[in-house]
Amino acid sequence: MQYPLPIAKLIESYMKLPGIGQKTATRLAFFTLNMEIEDIQDFSKSLVEVKTELHYCSICGNITQEDPCEICRDERVDRSSILVVEQPKDILSFENMGEYFGLYHVLNGVLSPMDGVSVDDLNIKSLIKRLQDHSVKEVILALNSSSEGEATAMYLSKLIKPSGIKVSRLASGLAVGSDIEYADDLTLKRAMTGRQEV
Amino acid sequence: MQYPLPIAKLIESYMKLPGIGQKTATRLAFFTLNMEIEDIQDFSKSLVEVKTELHYCSICGNITQEDPCEICRDERVDRSSILVVEQPKDILSFENMGEYFGLYHVLNGVLSPMDGVSVDDLNIKSLIKRLQDHSVKEVILALNSSSEGEATAMYLSKLIKPSGIKVSRLASGLAVGSDIEYADDLTLKRAMTGRQEV
Repeated sequence: MQYPLPIAKLIESYMKLPGIGQKTATRLAFFTLNMEIEDIQDFSKSLVEVKTELHYCSICGNITQEDPCEICRDERVDRSSILVVEQPKDILSFENMGEYFGLYHVLNGVLSPMDGVSVDDLNIKSLIKRLQDHSVKEVILALNSSSEGEATAMYLSKLIKPSGIKVSRLASGLAVGSDIEYADDLTLKRAMTGRQEV
Repeated sequence: MQYPLPIAKLIESYMKLPGIGQKTATRLAFFTLNMEIEDIQDFSKSLVEVKTELHYCSICGNITQEDPCEICRDERVDRSSILVVEQPKDILSFENMGEYFGLYHVLNGVLSPMDGVSVDDLNIKSLIKRLQDHSVKEVILALNSSSEGEATAMYLSKLIKPSGIKVSRLASGLAVGSDIEYADDLTLKRAMTGRQEV
């Protein structure tokens, strides 16, 4: 015996999401069965709209409803610096921080030969093109500190530096509020190398 | 700054699912953004269809596309016993076990005064009604062995027994393949009480 077709199909759809196996998908599908029809209709609509109404900004690669995106269109933005991030959602973290007022560029991933991600799969060409109009003075690399992130940062740095543009990276070190006791060796080493006079 | 509206709405929808908080919902929403449009459309359609195409069987409370459900309609089914479960998905477990060939009845929950679930919220009246045509000889209570499940089983047993119908419960004890070392006291006690001659 199997579940009725509509629920079997929904289980299959839930299983396509990351980190959701058959048991969780089944639990979610049965939960859906008891949800309010309005909530389900909203859910169903947003799923499609996220694909049909959102586009990638042709300048920076951020997700947006209108092209170019809000930040690229904003005239108050400091056009002398570009902060390079891996994913569109990283932009929100920096915007919410409230201490950066420049432009962004979304790579849409990091170099990862193991996963078959090469230079051509990332928004690197479009970044280099943006640097050619001479208004950009600094490129800040804000990639995750995974080995792929580090390698990508090194690659970009070597690519951009010859053009005379300043390339910087976010500081590595102890997270605010963290215990030295629990910090790993590499983090401690970075914190030591990057120590600052007080 | 906030996420573009379509993605913010999708995050909100994902957050309505059980066990999914804001971080996971955001991750799922951005994952959805990169899914194939066909998969998203299937997902979107199944969500609504699970609500519009599925109904509860008017006899046993199972979910079904046609009323009465497949099992209630099936003439090969042994109509002398009814196995009472909490949720429609429990039926699949017994059907897949392949050793039970009788009817089912879905309570749609268990008695739980703390959560405001009383006798009237469960499919108890319809169960009692089914017992009145005298073809049923045994009611097997297959409720989870939570305290609410136990209380509901006690309640049903007291309700049905006076009519002369046999009421049984699934055996409690050690799960096959489990270690006595890790078994809790109550499970061991049940296994001891229910010990069988070999």
